Amino acid sequence: MTAGAIQDYYPEEFSHCYGCGYGNDAGLKLKSYWDGRRATAEFTPAARYTALPGYVYGGLIASLMDCHGTATAAAAAHEAAGIEAGTSPLLRYVTASLKVDYRAPTPLGETLRLTGEATEVGARKVIVELRLEAAGRTCAIGRVVAVQLPESMAGKLEPVS
Amino acid sequence: MTAGAIQDYYPEEFSHCYGCGYGNDAGLKLKSYWDGRRATAEFTPAARYTALPGYVYGGLIASLMDCHGTATAAAAAHEAAGIEAGTSPLLRYVTASLKVDYRAPTPLGETLRLTGEATEVGARKVIVELRLEAAGRTCAIGRVVAVQLPESMAGKLEPVS
Repeated sequence: MTAGAIQDYYPEEFSHCYGCGYGNDAGLKLKSYWDGRRATAEFTPAARYTALPGYVYGGLIASLMDCHGTATAAAAAHEAAGIEAGTSPLLRYVTASLKVDYRAPTPLGETLRLTGEATEVGARKVIVELRLEAAGRTCAIGRVVAVQLPESMAGKLEPVS
Repeated sequence: MTAGAIQDYYPEEFSHCYGCGYGNDAGLKLKSYWDGRRATAEFTPAARYTALPGYVYGGLIASLMDCHGTATAAAAAHEAAGIEAGTSPLLRYVTASLKVDYRAPTPLGETLRLTGEATEVGARKVIVELRLEAAGRTCAIGRVVAVQLPESMAGKLEPVS
């Protein structure tokens, strides 16, 4: 169990993500919590994230799964390595592949509940299965293949302009 | 060839999409153009759509593919039915499944170029293969399974609040 959100343990230089970075004031600031086995998150979309009137935009759902998936991967990788998931800095994972199946229209105005479980934790690759529920109904399921941040990206970091 | 963007032919009541609706002033307003065989679009992300400094957020890439995919599906379905793709109102497709493979980090600050081609056009389902390029490099590929808007959603429409 982490005391804070998984994302709060990301290194400061990786805190700019639009979906979940604490350093991105224009972003969604998704917060995912680890209980030692799986990660959960809640998010209530603003009205602008509309698909059709009354329903949540599918691109937002994909975005939430992207960020919740990489957070789950980071926590699960720490857990598998015997390192407390609440240890800073947390390993930073990025998405290599994302799949979302939209099972039912997601109602706007509800709090969305996300769960993520790692089904495979390798040396550099973690596979995460995701679920999004609204009003007690599963509206989407997803899968993220997350990889540990490659050196090629870490070495080219530059300030956000 | 459509004179305007595919999205401009969507019925007004389906124009609220965050990703591509002309009626969503807070949205991305993606515009996709049909040449009779495939759809193309260009989009230059704002700096807030950061993943890691210098790179585009994967959730935004998924969002662009979502909207470009359903636009391609609508145009391809019209084309297959022998109806001019620039005819209003255009059939409205929604995403049943979205898959994105991130092949290379997408540089922020570049104009992203999207292409979409329908590889299967059924009575209600269209499969679209997508590609996103930046600075001459393929950064992501995707697949959208799009279905014609179900009656269950059309019948429950209510104003965006």
